[in-house]
Amino acid sequence: MNILAIGAHPDDLEISCAGTLAKMKQAGHEVVLCHASTGDKGHYVIPADELIVIRKGEAQQAGELIGCPVISLGLRDGEISSEDESVKTTFIDLIRSVQPDMVITHAPNDYMPDHVAVSKLVFDTTFTATLPAFSDRFPIAKKVPALYYMDNLSGIDFQPTIYVDVTDTFETKLRMLRKHQSQLTWLKEHDHVDILGFVETLGKMRGIQAGCTYAEGFIQHMAWTRPNAIRFPV
Amino acid sequence: MNILAIGAHPDDLEISCAGTLAKMKQAGHEVVLCHASTGDKGHYVIPADELIVIRKGEAQQAGELIGCPVISLGLRDGEISSEDESVKTTFIDLIRSVQPDMVITHAPNDYMPDHVAVSKLVFDTTFTATLPAFSDRFPIAKKVPALYYMDNLSGIDFQPTIYVDVTDTFETKLRMLRKHQSQLTWLKEHDHVDILGFVETLGKMRGIQAGCTYAEGFIQHMAWTRPNAIRFPV
Amino acid sequence: MNILAIGAHPDDLEISCAGTLAKMKQAGHEVVLCHASTGDKGHYVIPADELIVIRKGEAQQAGELIGCPVISLGLRDGEISSEDESVKTTFIDLIRSVQPDMVITHAPNDYMPDHVAVSKLVFDTTFTATLPAFSDRFPIAKKVPALYYMDNLSGIDFQPTIYVDVTDTFETKLRMLRKHQSQLTWLKEHDHVDILGFVETLGKMRGIQAGCTYAEGFIQHMAWTRPNAIRFPV
Amino acid sequence: MNILAIGAHPDDLEISCAGTLAKMKQAGHEVVLCHASTGDKGHYVIPADELIVIRKGEAQQAGELIGCPVISLGLRDGEISSEDESVKTTFIDLIRSVQPDMVITHAPNDYMPDHVAVSKLVFDTTFTATLPAFSDRFPIAKKVPALYYMDNLSGIDFQPTIYVDVTDTFETKLRMLRKHQSQLTWLKEHDHVDILGFVETLGKMRGIQAGCTYAEGFIQHMAWTRPNAIRFPV
Amino acid sequence: MNILAIGAHPDDLEISCAGTLAKMKQAGHEVVLCHASTGDKGHYVIPADELIVIRKGEAQQAGELIGCPVISLGLRDGEISSEDESVKTTFIDLIRSVQPDMVITHAPNDYMPDHVAVSKLVFDTTFTATLPAFSDRFPIAKKVPALYYMDNLSGIDFQPTIYVDVTDTFETKLRMLRKHQSQLTWLKEHDHVDILGFVETLGKMRGIQAGCTYAEGFIQHMAWTRPNAIRFPV
Amino acid sequence: MNILAIGAHPDDLEISCAGTLAKMKQAGHEVVLCHASTGDKGHYVIPADELIVIRKGEAQQAGELIGCPVISLGLRDGEISSEDESVKTTFIDLIRSVQPDMVITHAPNDYMPDHVAVSKLVFDTTFTATLPAFSDRFPIAKKVPALYYMDNLSGIDFQPTIYVDVTDTFETKLRMLRKHQSQLTWLKEHDHVDILGFVETLGKMRGIQAGCTYAEGFIQHMAWTRPNAIRFPV
Repeated sequence: MNILAIGAHPDDLEISCAGTLAKMKQAGHEVVLCHASTGDKGHYVIPADELIVIRKGEAQQAGELIGCPVISLGLRDGEISSEDESVKTTFIDLIRSVQPDMVITHAPNDYMPDHVAVSKLVFDTTFTATLPAFSDRFPIAKKVPALYYMDNLSGIDFQPTIYVDVTDTFETKLRMLRKHQSQLTWLKEHDHVDILGFVETLGKMRGIQAGCTYAEGFIQHMAWTRPNAIRFPV
Repeated sequence: MNILAIGAHPDDLEISCAGTLAKMKQAGHEVVLCHASTGDKGHYVIPADELIVIRKGEAQQAGELIGCPVISLGLRDGEISSEDESVKTTFIDLIRSVQPDMVITHAPNDYMPDHVAVSKLVFDTTFTATLPAFSDRFPIAKKVPALYYMDNLSGIDFQPTIYVDVTDTFETKLRMLRKHQSQLTWLKEHDHVDILGFVETLGKMRGIQAGCTYAEGFIQHMAWTRPNAIRFPV
Repeated sequence: MNILAIGAHPDDLEISCAGTLAKMKQAGHEVVLCHASTGDKGHYVIPADELIVIRKGEAQQAGELIGCPVISLGLRDGEISSEDESVKTTFIDLIRSVQPDMVITHAPNDYMPDHVAVSKLVFDTTFTATLPAFSDRFPIAKKVPALYYMDNLSGIDFQPTIYVDVTDTFETKLRMLRKHQSQLTWLKEHDHVDILGFVETLGKMRGIQAGCTYAEGFIQHMAWTRPNAIRFPV
Repeated sequence: MNILAIGAHPDDLEISCAGTLAKMKQAGHEVVLCHASTGDKGHYVIPADELIVIRKGEAQQAGELIGCPVISLGLRDGEISSEDESVKTTFIDLIRSVQPDMVITHAPNDYMPDHVAVSKLVFDTTFTATLPAFSDRFPIAKKVPALYYMDNLSGIDFQPTIYVDVTDTFETKLRMLRKHQSQLTWLKEHDHVDILGFVETLGKMRGIQAGCTYAEGFIQHMAWTRPNAIRFPV
Repeated sequence: MNILAIGAHPDDLEISCAGTLAKMKQAGHEVVLCHASTGDKGHYVIPADELIVIRKGEAQQAGELIGCPVISLGLRDGEISSEDESVKTTFIDLIRSVQPDMVITHAPNDYMPDHVAVSKLVFDTTFTATLPAFSDRFPIAKKVPALYYMDNLSGIDFQPTIYVDVTDTFETKLRMLRKHQSQLTWLKEHDHVDILGFVETLGKMRGIQAGCTYAEGFIQHMAWTRPNAIRFPV
Repeated sequence: MNILAIGAHPDDLEISCAGTLAKMKQAGHEVVLCHASTGDKGHYVIPADELIVIRKGEAQQAGELIGCPVISLGLRDGEISSEDESVKTTFIDLIRSVQPDMVITHAPNDYMPDHVAVSKLVFDTTFTATLPAFSDRFPIAKKVPALYYMDNLSGIDFQPTIYVDVTDTFETKLRMLRKHQSQLTWLKEHDHVDILGFVETLGKMRGIQAGCTYAEGFIQHMAWTRPNAIRFPV
């Protein structure tokens, strides 16, 4: 299966679904990681242009840990607009180039506007990528993929409909997350939180709910022409 | 009563509410059919400009079967934006020209972005059409109409609050739908589905739920200054 | 149409749906009012056996105001059990004797246990009354009726799916309610509230929501073999 | 995996989940079918004691079609009580004897009281079966199984969180259902419906929603100590 | 505590939360009132430019009654866009200048598009105001504030999670509202409603629900990094 | 304020709300702890009659840590019935003897039947305790108290509407929990879980959601005649 995971910022996938992505890759699926924004506002001291380079490298290294390609869409933190035509085209090209059977992204009720915008962009363009026109860089998408929303950072207002036991890949997930050294620092400064501790706690909590040591939770978006009977592959 | 039904594409009303519209018309109400987009991307082979003409004719013929005028707003498939000021003005003019007591459109959780955008445009502009300014083509709307959402193509994640028994007009509905010959073909190619079969199945399913042979389902949008105590007229 | 309204106590129908019942009766429908309990605990001073007689008379007079029969099931306040077989049989006999097309009762999330129990009893027995056996006092019910939940006293956690404009019958509703003189007193003592004032306020509030002066709200219970496409008749 | 499916009446499983059960059995799982009631009120003419024998045979034959044992709990139609201690013990014994990893039953909002009671009994006793005491007929259950709710007859107010593609076993499902000849007749008389037609329509509808020809839908009950991360096995 | 209340139009706060704001101010908190739009379309006869001046004065006088500053963001009625970058910057500057611990605004499901847009703008910019960049007029916000949604005008589809007893400040609320003389007139003309009567009715209704004479209701938005354990301070 | 917390088993309050109870007590409120069942099935080896004595002592010691009285209702594990009249009377007597302003108990969707039954018993009897009759052991309750549901053990399907920062009392909570030595052992054996670890994880998770180190979450039950505007006192 072709699986495409799309987060707003370079470390969002590591936080919310890397254990599952690692497991999918191990099971033999093609997994592509994508972040929409460069993460340019992810630090108070390091200037944006330096930070963009640093964070691209961090994301790249995280992806390499599980042998998956990492794509950056090059947008700007805090400025992702779900109504911008050129941004929509960027997403359409992404989807057409990957031709995913399944897409994972942020839930529509996530905590900050970039996450919300990416969620809507993915919903919209996984459909419009199947229509002729909009761009001619890639052949149109052959189908509308299955769509899954990943947990938010704190698990608030998010009741999974699917739990994935990630006990075996949780250490890998943490290693991937630790690659985002610049962001771990920033989140401590900006939100006074220990992001690794958060991820550890949410992983355990979802594990308790799911009957295993560590778990990640997802909600399937149920809408027509999404192949909703496709099994979550791990 | 003045009833205005607004779908995103030329065949959306036929799919989701034509049985009810036929019944309303038979009961003596004024019913106006409107589609926002020309349906220009509704075919892989026929070029857009030819297709626009073909589909306009198809919609027109469908409307004639029940003696109702059909309005096209001339937008483009996959590009309907609920944030575009000129599109909003187009909707405001439509509403002011029809002065509806009741409006039927797509639900906010429908399956593709044009449907979602039309749903928001109708919610927004049925209110703003009553405010002075925005356009001077028509007198301002005398009231905010009642607002109803029609079913989606597959009935997914849509629990009607109102069922309409359309057993007597179901054959008319199918005849209207068959007028959209270009689209029936396209949906087979694009989504590998038999759209007539879908409509037959959903009609039966809603009928089973409602205690009759064929039914269509609707959800009333409950918000202030909508005349929520107006009875659904059929 | 045969309409049966069932409240837990002698004044519950007056509080929550009398304006609608009056309108239904005026429109030519057969309307039967029923209260499950005698209201025996509805006073601190008057002894239960006296109170039962008083309240039966009050309910009778309220029903007479709109020309509808009033049935008491003779249960005890605070002791209505939805699991008691003989109580179930009492409800089955009621339904079979009335043969309703439509039943109105308390919502499952109403504020006190008798209301909740009556709601479940009505849901259960409107179905089981159609099965052979349980009792031979009346012929079995010919069909499962449509089922509607009426508002609670304060409108809390109750979003109507149907509003009925009761502007024309609201004065009648208040007159019916005033017949329950013993209860109006008790509710002042027990809950420190002016029940007539409550009903006036809720009537206005639902009116504002519905776009008229006074309204009552209902939620239709959507379940199979209920004739969900039957129109609410007023 | 040990899978236990529990319906209220002899044909409920065939209606709502037989396609999935057949698929599970084919995939090598142990599948046990159970109905709580004898179906004794399932006919207007045939007396209860004769009917009990007939229906037991019908259920047996249906189970044989997919090679699964069929258990009847011997309760009475319309009289299943979730509060009856001896009924609870019957369910506890059932669960302990099967030791299921996964249980499928009716949803709590199903359309008639026996279905609702069975749903609660299963929720309660899948937990209490793991506690010492209550009965000593079987060793206590080793774990609380995963719990899934099956669709209702009409699909009303039921949005699946899991769809199973049953295209390959749908014909088997219909063959199983046809074994319940007495019930097919009764449902026509009692509810004026063609039960085979209903099942065909709901199967298609869920198929349209799921992106396949025929599907069945389920909702997983998310509660603690249920192994929520166990994959639905087909 | 620093509290910032943001309504779309000059009188929205008075309608939905002034009793609470008055109580907060009395309790010693800093309270800032803000309206996004000038209210320029709030009258059929008075021209926009005159009306803007009148309404600014009315809002100012209302704020003075409780000793709170009033800020107008200078937008236009019916034209507030949550996607406009310059509007976002205006909101970011507002939030940075006030540095609120808590923000109150419209709910996302309010009845007209300006309210909905303001709700989204507040959700988005209370987060992005904490990020470096976007504007350099004020220092960045030190934290993401707690976020509360206020009731809508009719209480429709709004179940408060928090009730505030405003019995003691309800008269003040009405006095504040009466300052908006131009709007009271307009709402009578435009919507045929007595806005003071509406507010009186909703205040009583929420009071009945909350167990006091007058109340206002709120829903806390639960999302991460909002300090959700901060007590509503009155 | 008089606060009454009611759990099904001797350690349920410690697990779900002891941090809040400790804080309430420190703030000067009267806090009474009650468990419905003796916990007699809480061990595989220790016989029931010995266990009852042990667990009563453990609960007593936990209560003493925060200086609160502990009441046991003497029911049996796995056998609590919300329909049993004598059990209802036991609850009515409890409520009348404590005369609480506020009650905390399990949510209706908790994970096992005793919790669900206690939740319903508390909802029912906090109302019926105010009615004359049922028992004459205590004077009737003067009012219906505010009602709050506490979190379940895993936080599954429970979105708090109120968070309490229990950072300062979390160590006390753990000390109280450690008093239930027999139960900690049993939960390890029965459910293969480290109950102290669970509580630590859930406390952190709710803390992350609430913006503090440790938190507990609650949902207020919104129903009439509950004084819903009473502030949660900590």
